Amino acid sequence: MPATKLEDLFLTTLKDIYHGEKQIMKALPRMAKHAESSELRSALEHHLEETEGQVERLERIFALMDRPARGETCEAIQGLIEEGEEVMGKARSGAVCDAGMIAAGQAIEHYEMARYGTLIAWANQLGMTEAAELLEQTLAQEKKADKKLSEIALGQVNRKAA
Amino acid sequence: MPATKLEDLFLTTLKDIYHGEKQIMKALPRMAKHAESSELRSALEHHLEETEGQVERLERIFALMDRPARGETCEAIQGLIEEGEEVMGKARSGAVCDAGMIAAGQAIEHYEMARYGTLIAWANQLGMTEAAELLEQTLAQEKKADKKLSEIALGQVNRKAA
Repeated sequence: MPATKLEDLFLTTLKDIYHGEKQIMKALPRMAKHAESSELRSALEHHLEETEGQVERLERIFALMDRPARGETCEAIQGLIEEGEEVMGKARSGAVCDAGMIAAGQAIEHYEMARYGTLIAWANQLGMTEAAELLEQTLAQEKKADKKLSEIALGQVNRKAA
Repeated sequence: MPATKLEDLFLTTLKDIYHGEKQIMKALPRMAKHAESSELRSALEHHLEETEGQVERLERIFALMDRPARGETCEAIQGLIEEGEEVMGKARSGAVCDAGMIAAGQAIEHYEMARYGTLIAWANQLGMTEAAELLEQTLAQEKKADKKLSEIALGQVNRKAA
């Protein structure tokens, strides 16, 4: 689809992150199952619940735009998730696996922060106030999830993995 | 390569971002050439210069570790760069293309921030003080580049694209 205006870019990016969040919903339980640290496991489980809410918010934005909620394959997020899964296959110790999963998780969180930040700026420019507010809620959750992962890594996981 | 300890993860991630930075070095001139906004063009050109320095810093870290500087294909960064290139092909107006390139650029910056943040935490854990300092310099540049892109988007580009 050629992007003739900002609204087209907004919709494309919305589809991209919608697909991304759905992929993350599938990956999180697998990652949680592999976590050795109980703190990491519960953070991943908590983020799964949040992600379900984030998907619903995206669906509300599609509805506000009178568009069907539809994802568009996002190569970047698939690459990031694959990196996380590779670590699970390769790491020999639980703590090293945890450290690698945290790294992959933080790369995913950062990708989402970039996407939601962009979508918020575009929604504001397009006068889509309600959409911008919904996206702000999600962005705040992503930032918090990223910070939590840093805390877990610095708290115990990295030391155990070293 | 199975990751038996944190140092293995560090080296794998170093190779990954080394490959990523080299890909970015190739993509930035193409993006700058496509930029309609002169402010965006000069920001991209400035970041190309910074990226060359970042690659050198990574090479110094490989040397500190007594390892050859070698990249490892990073699917995620390739996906992110492809998204940026797709926008160049699809956007019909210069401002929409600029907005899309800024979005792609910020996704790349965020990916790098995640990677460098992780590498710094791991370098500190591993007692690699000099590597951590080099990585801190790069992280500061990435954060500044991301902020600059936000300013350009909010300053003029998004309004023109809407």
